[in-house]
Amino acid sequence: MSGLVFRQLFDSTSSTYTYIIGCGVTRLAAIIDPVYEKVSRDVKMISELNLQLKYALNTHCHADHVTGTAALRTATGCQTIISKASAAKADLFLNDNEKVKIGNLELEARSTPGHTDGCMTFVLHSHGMCFTGDALMIRACGRTDFQQGDARRLYHSVHSRVFSLPEEFSVYPAHDYQGRTQSSVREEKLYNPRLTKSEEEFATIMENLGLRYPAKIDVSVPWNMRCGPTVVEDKEILADIAANKPPAN
Amino acid sequence: MSGLVFRQLFDSTSSTYTYIIGCGVTRLAAIIDPVYEKVSRDVKMISELNLQLKYALNTHCHADHVTGTAALRTATGCQTIISKASAAKADLFLNDNEKVKIGNLELEARSTPGHTDGCMTFVLHSHGMCFTGDALMIRACGRTDFQQGDARRLYHSVHSRVFSLPEEFSVYPAHDYQGRTQSSVREEKLYNPRLTKSEEEFATIMENLGLRYPAKIDVSVPWNMRCGPTVVEDKEILADIAANKPPAN
Repeated sequence: MSGLVFRQLFDSTSSTYTYIIGCGVTRLAAIIDPVYEKVSRDVKMISELNLQLKYALNTHCHADHVTGTAALRTATGCQTIISKASAAKADLFLNDNEKVKIGNLELEARSTPGHTDGCMTFVLHSHGMCFTGDALMIRACGRTDFQQGDARRLYHSVHSRVFSLPEEFSVYPAHDYQGRTQSSVREEKLYNPRLTKSEEEFATIMENLGLRYPAKIDVSVPWNMRCGPTVVEDKEILADIAANKPPAN
Repeated sequence: MSGLVFRQLFDSTSSTYTYIIGCGVTRLAAIIDPVYEKVSRDVKMISELNLQLKYALNTHCHADHVTGTAALRTATGCQTIISKASAAKADLFLNDNEKVKIGNLELEARSTPGHTDGCMTFVLHSHGMCFTGDALMIRACGRTDFQQGDARRLYHSVHSRVFSLPEEFSVYPAHDYQGRTQSSVREEKLYNPRLTKSEEEFATIMENLGLRYPAKIDVSVPWNMRCGPTVVEDKEILADIAANKPPAN
């Protein structure tokens, strides 16, 4: 882990993982998939790790929690980043294969659409880590029945852009619902119950998941298309999120 | 992380962290603080990581969840371990400064009493990691008002046996309630709101926490004194744990 300051954080309401990636030399840092309700915790941790936040990134426009990226910009002066293909607001936009420099570290942005059009996997080659968002999860993957979801597209994304990484690379997803914190490319290639199947079988599995309407989609997507609320710990917004009430305008 | 297969797992009911520590060469492994309700998950993960479980350890006799150690012995043939000072049942008992060999890895057992008499911190010197149980938690520590708790003893334990480790050592506790997954000796020496105080102030803080009676203590302690249930996923026992009903005999 030399040269890397790394922290994984969890939001128990949405089962979302947030990641802090800091350069141990320059102390510059990025945060991936921050959750609005947890911004104060994250700001405190970044400060206590003696890091300076440069970028707040989303792997995609989430449908299950409101992003903390704009609030982090307010709190720290960082810039917000999302894929161009997401069509969401941010300060900077990423296309496939573009790089994000964080001091001496470099994240490679790989387009991995299928859960949404704009999903990206961020790869930290120097430390054998990838942040897969909802494209590849631990023994699972994101649903494909909302937000431009496309099972066959997801299948190709994971196989061509994640399973092509070295097998020892660690996989850090945006969620886990069983208390698992990481996986590896090797494990998912061997044991993912969906993505080890043929494309045809995968599409059938994804069509028949029978999932409920996402609980927070009506509040999350409109907020996340605009990079989330700008005010940290705004009580009205927190109450509206808890009540599943979309932004007023 | 060379030579180490490491996984952190979470039980959301009790906010307990479980750790798998495997030797990458011999594939022998230990698990620290497994939770009874999560044994099947843990057995599956150990198997998919191509590890063979040699030991299931508890940092102490927990009061907030039922241990999975005896069930893991049933499932894998491993041996169970706890401190001699805990007075709890197990296959093997540890005294202060004893070592646990896991293939090419070695855990040092350090007595860190104060939360309970039998609390131990396990140190993996080769990889700069310590597993502190409830002695030292992230910006917190275990309560000292139950199970032979003694605030001054805990203060001395943490200062002499954990804060004496190199500052860059990672701290992995048995719990966190805010979604933080790890800390470091440096951070806790600088930012722990209790343990950065004087012994006198610490004792006062601990006396005035005003915590509720531990929700699961009446079912957890009698089970944990006997190493937990031996049967994996026993439906009656799971129902009794959920209903907070102690073992029958």
